[in-house]
Order: sequence, then structure tokens, then C-alpha cells
Amino acid sequence: MAPTQPERLSLTKSFGGWHGRYRHWSGVQNCDMTFAVYLPPAAEHRKVPALWWLSGLTCTDENFMQKAGAHRAAAEAGIALIGPDTSPRGTDLPGEHEAYDFGSGAGFYVNATQSPWSRHYRMYDYVTQELPALVQAHFPLNGREAISGHSMGGHGALVCALRNPARYSSVSAFAPICNPVQCPWGEKAFSGYLGDDREVWKQWDASELIAAHGSELPILVDQGDDDNFLRDGQLRPEALQYACSQAGVDLNLRMQPGYDHSYFFISSFIEDHIAHHAQAL
Amino acid sequence: MAPTQPERLSLTKSFGGWHGRYRHWSGVQNCDMTFAVYLPPAAEHRKVPALWWLSGLTCTDENFMQKAGAHRAAAEAGIALIGPDTSPRGTDLPGEHEAYDFGSGAGFYVNATQSPWSRHYRMYDYVTQELPALVQAHFPLNGREAISGHSMGGHGALVCALRNPARYSSVSAFAPICNPVQCPWGEKAFSGYLGDDREVWKQWDASELIAAHGSELPILVDQGDDDNFLRDGQLRPEALQYACSQAGVDLNLRMQPGYDHSYFFISSFIEDHIAHHAQAL
Repeated sequence: MAPTQPERLSLTKSFGGWHGRYRHWSGVQNCDMTFAVYLPPAAEHRKVPALWWLSGLTCTDENFMQKAGAHRAAAEAGIALIGPDTSPRGTDLPGEHEAYDFGSGAGFYVNATQSPWSRHYRMYDYVTQELPALVQAHFPLNGREAISGHSMGGHGALVCALRNPARYSSVSAFAPICNPVQCPWGEKAFSGYLGDDREVWKQWDASELIAAHGSELPILVDQGDDDNFLRDGQLRPEALQYACSQAGVDLNLRMQPGYDHSYFFISSFIEDHIAHHAQAL
Repeated sequence: MAPTQPERLSLTKSFGGWHGRYRHWSGVQNCDMTFAVYLPPAAEHRKVPALWWLSGLTCTDENFMQKAGAHRAAAEAGIALIGPDTSPRGTDLPGEHEAYDFGSGAGFYVNATQSPWSRHYRMYDYVTQELPALVQAHFPLNGREAISGHSMGGHGALVCALRNPARYSSVSAFAPICNPVQCPWGEKAFSGYLGDDREVWKQWDASELIAAHGSELPILVDQGDDDNFLRDGQLRPEALQYACSQAGVDLNLRMQPGYDHSYFFISSFIEDHIAHHAQAL
């Protein structure tokens, strides 16, 4: 089935390019979804590569586009930014809107297998298949893709890249959930979306995927050392570091002194990440 | 009376510097006020100059700091950013919270003379006297100041600079309300805060102040030409331009094609404004 034409909600000029927000019917998730695309000035003359950005818990397509200061570097590098939402919306499943870390705003970029979530919560297929086909059809993109994200979205970016070895030219993450099978956020989300079999969970865990399959892609990760979620054991970069060292994967894990989990942290280093991706794209 | 010690609400590292939010009792406005200070890395070693940022309708101290991407350029230039709120808060005057363009979030940087507003709404004295004394006492500032702002805050920045000719080393504005005595926003706010005498209003109107007194300061203004409030006659840059040309004031009014009234517009040009102020500071 051809992707439905997305409906444009807004279009705003930014750093010489254009930031648009769009809504479309997602057949994969059985609901309307909203996403954002930033096109750099270069896209007026040629097709450009795309950097996917997966956001963290509670975010929509807006947080990154408004707060990360990424348009500046993307305009300069001639890279489009694509920002999906973080979960299905407009559904009303039991308990869906009760917690910030499960249900709406917290899709965790997996394909749910458990009822009632499995009918809608298929963010993995959405961000790796349905939405890429749609943006490829409707925007001036050259088909080359990189992926990055923050926190839950850093987990998503790593998992998407590791499960699709030839797909993305590069991957990076800010304060990712590196080992969800071993942290409270991941245990809660994976139990609910995937059921009780912890072996199944491992297919959605960056550290486990690297331990099982390795990776040819170099990985850039920035992590603030004053991040309260790091202290709470939600992020576990040490697990990713151990898996990469065992598997011979090229991980550049930069512990950034004094930085926390916020978009101020992301904006401070987004230029480095866009340069990392620009080189590969 | 010595300024009360401000209470720190948060402190976040950003571009090597620190973004803090603070609350203090305002004796001028008879309520608690919140403000933000971004200190560049240079402030760890020496006192730095300050750029005041006055925000627009509905904003708090947070919008500019989160969305303008200004920390990057301020860190590089060694300039502190100071962001007051846009009105008194926590008061509960009749009708205060009913409209987005009057009362809370809409102080217009004037000293109200009309009851009940005059007991609290004294944003002009607050941003030109009380808050400067407080930040000078508690932060590593060298006493040199510049001022900028957006929309209602662009009006505020121009009026503060024009009423205090020797005070600020430089002034700029994004999409300012240039001639509030002649636009719906200004007429509503000035009637409510200042009463019916339109002669009094002129003391709070950048175009009228320039016509009456001129200015030695060069003025930098960016205005998007696809700004719906420009179309609606709220901003009137042509009045400012006319007043400056008559009075021989050095106005650099840049009409930016395709840009609207949003923070995407501000972020696209904030680096130019910070460079403008850095040269003067």
C-alpha cells in the first residue's frame, strides 16, 4: 500500500531552511501520527541525506526541533532532520496515559507483542519502515540515513542501527538507555510490551545485541556525569562499554563532566554529533 | 534596602557555562519573581558583561533560554545572559489571567499608574533598577550592560535603552512592537496600565521617544517578512524607521524574507545580535 499523503500542520523558516510538522495515518500503528522534518537550504537544489532523531520519554516531535539548536548545524552540513513522535497517540488503552514511562510518550521503539499494546505500539516498524517510506516519497531525500537520539530515543537509535547493520551510515546517542533489560525503565516497558520472557527482551537491548552480533558501525555516545538517571542506574553506559570492548566494537563514549540529562546537554554537543554523521553521510 | 538573596531553583551546565534559575522577593512589584542567568565559561575567571533579554507575550524566563540557541554564542563571546519574567506572578488581580495580551505574561515593561495594576505591575523599574542591582550583587558581572528582546520584549528593550541614554552599550530587537500607541496590543495594554491620556503613553513608545529625543545608540532590528503580527499591524517597523530617519538615528532594520514571529526566527539570527552586542560591550 502506498503511503498516504501527509497533511502539513505548519511550515517555519529556520536557518535558511524549513521546519515542517506533518500528520498522517499510520497503518502500522492504527492511529494518526505527527512527525517533523527540517530541510536544510541545500534541499532546494538537490536531494539530501537524513538524520533520524528519536526522542526520549514524554517528548513529542517538538522538543528536539525547538530546544536542541540542531537546525544551525544541519543547515550548514546540508542534512535533513526527521523527528518522529515517541508513541502512538489518540488511542485510549487502559492505563495508557497514567505513567510518564509507559504508554503514551513512552513507546520505547519496540514492536509490542502483548495485548492491548500490540495493536498500536509498533514504533520499531514505524520508525524503520513506514515513516522512512513516507518521507522518502514526499521529501527531497537521497536515501542515505543516519540515526541518533536521546535517553529512550538513544536506546532506540542504537537498537535500530544494530538490528539493521547495512541500513544506517552512522549512529550516535545522548545519554542512551544502554541496557534496558537491566534497568527499571526497561523492565517495566519490556514486561508490558513484550511479556515476561527475558530472552525476547534481549533483541531490543543495545548491549545484548552487541554481545550477540557485534557491529561494524562506529558508535558515538555522549553522557553527562551529573545525570540523575545515570546515578539511578537507568542508563548503564558501562554495560555498553563492556559489550563493545568484548566484541571489538568502536565505541567513543564521552563522559561530559558536569552535564545533566537535559536539552541544554544535548544542545552543547549536537554540533559534534551532526559532524560525526555528516562525515559518514 | 539591600536586595534579598535570590533562591536558586536549578543550575544546569550548558556550553561549558551555567544556566541558573532564581526566585526572589521583588519589593518593587510586591511579589516573588523568577529570573534566569546564563554565565559563560569566562565567568569562572573574571567578571563579564551582561546582555539583558526581555521576552514577549506569554513567555517566562524559560522560553528564550531553551529555544533561542543563545548559550552557544554567549559562551563564545564571554557574555552573561539575563532573562527576567514578563510580568508579576502569584498575584490575583481581577481579570489578570484572562487574556494573553494583558496582565500575567504581558507586563509590557511599563510602570502601571492605574489601580489595581500599579501595586504590582512595575516591570520597567524592575528590569532597569531592582533586578540589575540584585544580579550585580550576586553574580560575577562587570557592570557593562546591553539589552535586547522579542516582540513585546523588543519594545521593552528599545524603551529601556531610549529612556536611559548612557546606560546600555548597545540595543537590538527581534520583531519589536515599534509603535505601541498605534497598535491594538499597545492600545489595550497602555489603556489598562497607564489610563486614557495618550500623551502619557508616548513615554513608553520607541518611535515616539526617538521623535522626541533621538538617540546616539545604533539600533539593530530583525523583522521576518512573513510574520502574521507584522501583517496585523501590531509591530509597525515602518514607524520606527520613519522616526529614525527624521531624527538621524542609526537604525539597521533587516527585513528577513520568509521568517515568521517564532523562536526559529530568533535562533536563526541570535548569533548576529550577540556579535553586535559583543562589539559594544
